[in-house]
Amino acid sequence: MEVLFINTNTRVDFVEITPLLNRIIGEKEWSDGLMTVFVPHTTAGITINENADPSVVSDMEKMLSEIVPVHHGFTHLEGNSDAHIKTSMLGTSEQLILENGEIQLGTWQGVFLADFDGPRRRKVWVKFIPAEGPR
Amino acid sequence: MEVLFINTNTRVDFVEITPLLNRIIGEKEWSDGLMTVFVPHTTAGITINENADPSVVSDMEKMLSEIVPVHHGFTHLEGNSDAHIKTSMLGTSEQLILENGEIQLGTWQGVFLADFDGPRRRKVWVKFIPAEGPR
Amino acid sequence: MEVLFINTNTRVDFVEITPLLNRIIGEKEWSDGLMTVFVPHTTAGITINENADPSVVSDMEKMLSEIVPVHHGFTHLEGNSDAHIKTSMLGTSEQLILENGEIQLGTWQGVFLADFDGPRRRKVWVKFIPAEGPR
Repeated sequence: MEVLFINTNTRVDFVEITPLLNRIIGEKEWSDGLMTVFVPHTTAGITINENADPSVVSDMEKMLSEIVPVHHGFTHLEGNSDAHIKTSMLGTSEQLILENGEIQLGTWQGVFLADFDGPRRRKVWVKFIPAEGPR
Repeated sequence: MEVLFINTNTRVDFVEITPLLNRIIGEKEWSDGLMTVFVPHTTAGITINENADPSVVSDMEKMLSEIVPVHHGFTHLEGNSDAHIKTSMLGTSEQLILENGEIQLGTWQGVFLADFDGPRRRKVWVKFIPAEGPR
Repeated sequence: MEVLFINTNTRVDFVEITPLLNRIIGEKEWSDGLMTVFVPHTTAGITINENADPSVVSDMEKMLSEIVPVHHGFTHLEGNSDAHIKTSMLGTSEQLILENGEIQLGTWQGVFLADFDGPRRRKVWVKFIPAEGPR
């Protein structure tokens, strides 16, 4: 698998990684298959949503922080239970379809690392499964 | 990949697509592997849940609309931030196991397109990765 | 595909299944590819989160039960609509990267069956898609 490194800048920070994924595909010459994008952290997840208007992502960051407040009588002593919970709500991986060496995404879709306990240097793992042999 | 078109009828509308997926599998003669079902939209997601009693899905539609209200001081000018957020909460794709040409689902499970900003004509993309060669 | 059986002990119960997944990989001698872990139920989901401090999972169980209360004017007569909704929020499957016969997980990550309507005997299905031929 390939490894990406992403620096986040605030506690809650959604960073688009679509261009980094495209660069890997070009370098590895992956063409047709399924690409799994997996976040090996427990306080950062991944999601696909609109990348045209940044207010979509900022509205999401704020709404999720209202649904799961930072302080809520949690028992986990690190004080970041909210980040763990939001990570499970968005999920730890996305599966992307590749055809002709291109990620198949809708017009408005981008892939975002969603950090809920930044700022940190985060990792993203990328694995490709080809659709056709011989391999 | 294959493309499905689904018409939704109300702003929030969960439409079961399991029969359409089964039809594709039959036509393409897919047998054993993994099927990725991906929604190329940012205000509609996908989920797997009970398809026997329609009140399950209607309870879910209502509860999600309480958790993420339509009007909540959002800044995104299109007025559909709630739909974007609910899409990320349910997710953009599902992965289904195929064996002997059949989707492996539990007794009560169905696959639903979850439109949060309808009514619209929506697309669903379907990609098959076989489990065994030669391919 | 392979089948796991997991007994849950309370209505809401997150049970770590990482060791059971590792045992299957060893038995089947799977090495390099993608492993889909799918829950064939509609009131139990699956999630990846911290397995070091059990308070993370217990904080999550409690928070989700506040976001989606058991009693909330639901119409589904079985009285477990909250469990269906939480299942869709966490999701029905996880995709895991396998390399050198090992699940690739972050330092703090474990895979949990998340039962929201236990105690029950639950099933988990596991399917492996190899990354390279010949197959």
